[in-house]
Amino acid sequence: MNYYPKSITSLIKNISKLPGIGEKTAERLALHMLRAPRQEAQQLAESILDVKDKIRFCSRCFGLSDGDLCRICSDPGRNPRLVCVVEQPADMVALEKSGAFAGMYHILQGVLSPMDGVGPDQLRIRELEKRIQDEAIQEIVLATGTHVEGESTASYLGERLQRFSVKVTRIASGVPIGGDLKFVDQVTLKRAMETRHAL
Amino acid sequence: MNYYPKSITSLIKNISKLPGIGEKTAERLALHMLRAPRQEAQQLAESILDVKDKIRFCSRCFGLSDGDLCRICSDPGRNPRLVCVVEQPADMVALEKSGAFAGMYHILQGVLSPMDGVGPDQLRIRELEKRIQDEAIQEIVLATGTHVEGESTASYLGERLQRFSVKVTRIASGVPIGGDLKFVDQVTLKRAMETRHAL
Repeated sequence: MNYYPKSITSLIKNISKLPGIGEKTAERLALHMLRAPRQEAQQLAESILDVKDKIRFCSRCFGLSDGDLCRICSDPGRNPRLVCVVEQPADMVALEKSGAFAGMYHILQGVLSPMDGVGPDQLRIRELEKRIQDEAIQEIVLATGTHVEGESTASYLGERLQRFSVKVTRIASGVPIGGDLKFVDQVTLKRAMETRHAL
Repeated sequence: MNYYPKSITSLIKNISKLPGIGEKTAERLALHMLRAPRQEAQQLAESILDVKDKIRFCSRCFGLSDGDLCRICSDPGRNPRLVCVVEQPADMVALEKSGAFAGMYHILQGVLSPMDGVGPDQLRIRELEKRIQDEAIQEIVLATGTHVEGESTASYLGERLQRFSVKVTRIASGVPIGGDLKFVDQVTLKRAMETRHAL
């Protein structure tokens, strides 16, 4: 890898540390940056540092924020009685893009995973309980993933939140829209059949 | 795209300006940088700027360099009488990786492409002719690509360099090694058949 001058080699090395970026792609991107206008490269470099400097966790929902409260938590137009619990900020963004939810969020910052040493105390569960008490929340929608850890986190939360007078729901799982039944896995089909509903 | 705080949104925007990086990948990379140690993000940002500040063209071969002469042009162990002409620095690196060439290079910085306004004067052809005169070069290997522009640039150079007493050769084209004949396109097969050689 010392076919290029030293500064290009080290840029390639740093780019290929990014997830999902192989050496070939890193090389291509480094050569692009070399050719790109200086302003474009500078904007990219600055925005990388900016993110590290400015982003912190929202003090209410623990999503990403550049202030004390995130954009959603400080939006008076949203329903503060309805809170959707997700694993990570990206899950919140996916739901926002769907436009299907107008309540607030609570980001757990992970899922229960005893193998990785993540128990209830490593997630933002106590903070969720405090919000249920303080904010007069009426419904908690559990929107953790449908993988094993997501499911067990949801059922753990379902039980743990029983002691509060709050309605706890789980997002539906089943055949994805636009999906052909023959391409859907058996577990999903079984779930879709079990949770079938009247038309 | 204003689901994330402003500094993340602008990082995503800047990343997705890179070639071959879509919005989803840019989002994934931005969130990775957010989680990555500050030092890693800083190294990446600095190496982007470093490349813009330090890299210039080698004054002899017009490849990338961080000094006046590039690593290859200043290597006394290479054959200075043999010069390989390529389109871009990345082509030179590909040849270097193959380990098949121990001469010098000359980077044209493009190919003839009248449609894009690239004529002989936009390439480093005069500089190549000057090198042929000054450096007592014995052989010029034309290693531009085998696409239409690469081929026509090679044949243009082949004619133009006839007035010098230098041997001009062209890299071979044909069936790639490890290739199955049935997957090779007709033009390549035709060329491979035409340029067949005795064993």
